[in-house]
Amino acid sequence: MNYIPDILKKVIEDISNLPGYGEKSAQRLAINLLKLPRGEAVDLIKHIAQMLDKIHPCKECGIYTDQEICPICSSEERDKTHICVVEESFDAYAIEKTGKFKGVYHVLGGRLSPLEGIGPEKLNIKTLIERIKKYQVKEVIIATNPTVEGEATGNYIYNLLKKYPLNITRLAYGLPFGSVLENADDFTLSKALEYRVKI
Amino acid sequence: MNYIPDILKKVIEDISNLPGYGEKSAQRLAINLLKLPRGEAVDLIKHIAQMLDKIHPCKECGIYTDQEICPICSSEERDKTHICVVEESFDAYAIEKTGKFKGVYHVLGGRLSPLEGIGPEKLNIKTLIERIKKYQVKEVIIATNPTVEGEATGNYIYNLLKKYPLNITRLAYGLPFGSVLENADDFTLSKALEYRVKI
Repeated sequence: MNYIPDILKKVIEDISNLPGYGEKSAQRLAINLLKLPRGEAVDLIKHIAQMLDKIHPCKECGIYTDQEICPICSSEERDKTHICVVEESFDAYAIEKTGKFKGVYHVLGGRLSPLEGIGPEKLNIKTLIERIKKYQVKEVIIATNPTVEGEATGNYIYNLLKKYPLNITRLAYGLPFGSVLENADDFTLSKALEYRVKI
Repeated sequence: MNYIPDILKKVIEDISNLPGYGEKSAQRLAINLLKLPRGEAVDLIKHIAQMLDKIHPCKECGIYTDQEICPICSSEERDKTHICVVEESFDAYAIEKTGKFKGVYHVLGGRLSPLEGIGPEKLNIKTLIERIKKYQVKEVIIATNPTVEGEATGNYIYNLLKKYPLNITRLAYGLPFGSVLENADDFTLSKALEYRVKI
């Protein structure tokens, strides 16, 4: 492949090491970066460099923040006895957007995935137990994704926490709002039926 | 969204301006960059910066190269009277990998796409005509992608070139090697039938 310049090969190799990227998608991203107006491309990598410099997990909850303790954990108005456990920071941002949750978060930084070699020791679980003891937590809401891996992660955490005197809950399964019944998958529909509520 | 740090929002905005990225996929890429070991992430952006600095289109054919004239165009062994027209550099790299083409390339840098506002003036077409005159080109192989937009681009170029005394060809349509007949789409199968060859 000596017709591909070395530095371009290097960038493609770097990008294809990121989760979710293969050789083709890495090529596409590299080419799209080259096709950007040079000023925009330079800005993009300047911003990424700043991000890498400034952003790190909150010492308390693990959410990505530019402060030592994130604004949610340091807010007087948030109830530290209710912890919502999510896989990634953006899951917490999504819940935050609803404005319905006044507790705090705990970001695992991923999900259990034997195939990708991600075991419990790679997730931010130890500090969850510490927080539960420190703040005498009353409720842990497990809000991992409703996928096989997310469920397995949720179950693992449930088994770890069930010996503590607290409520462990998880997000409801059911029909997404605005959806069409006949398009719902069997699993969602059967869960919606199983957890039907009295009106 | 004041719970998302500003610089993280900025990076997501920058990435989602790239073709093929939306807000969610930009979020995912930003988080994956943050989750990389910091050294690897810093190397990645260092390499991208070097790429942006060193790589530019070949003055002759438009392929991405770190030299003024790419190794293919500057090789004595390549036949400059045969030009293969492709959409992107990686299409040329893919053909190059076959080792079957001894001519030179011409990279358009995209395809006609009225929806994305890409007209002929945004493609590297003018220099193709210059090269045809300069090297008394005998054959132009149109190797745009077999998609609606790629076809339209190929037809546009065909109409521009048909007044010149040269052969204009395009890559064959047909069944991909190793494929299963019953899985072939109708268009591919009907083209395979139409262009059947005597054995």
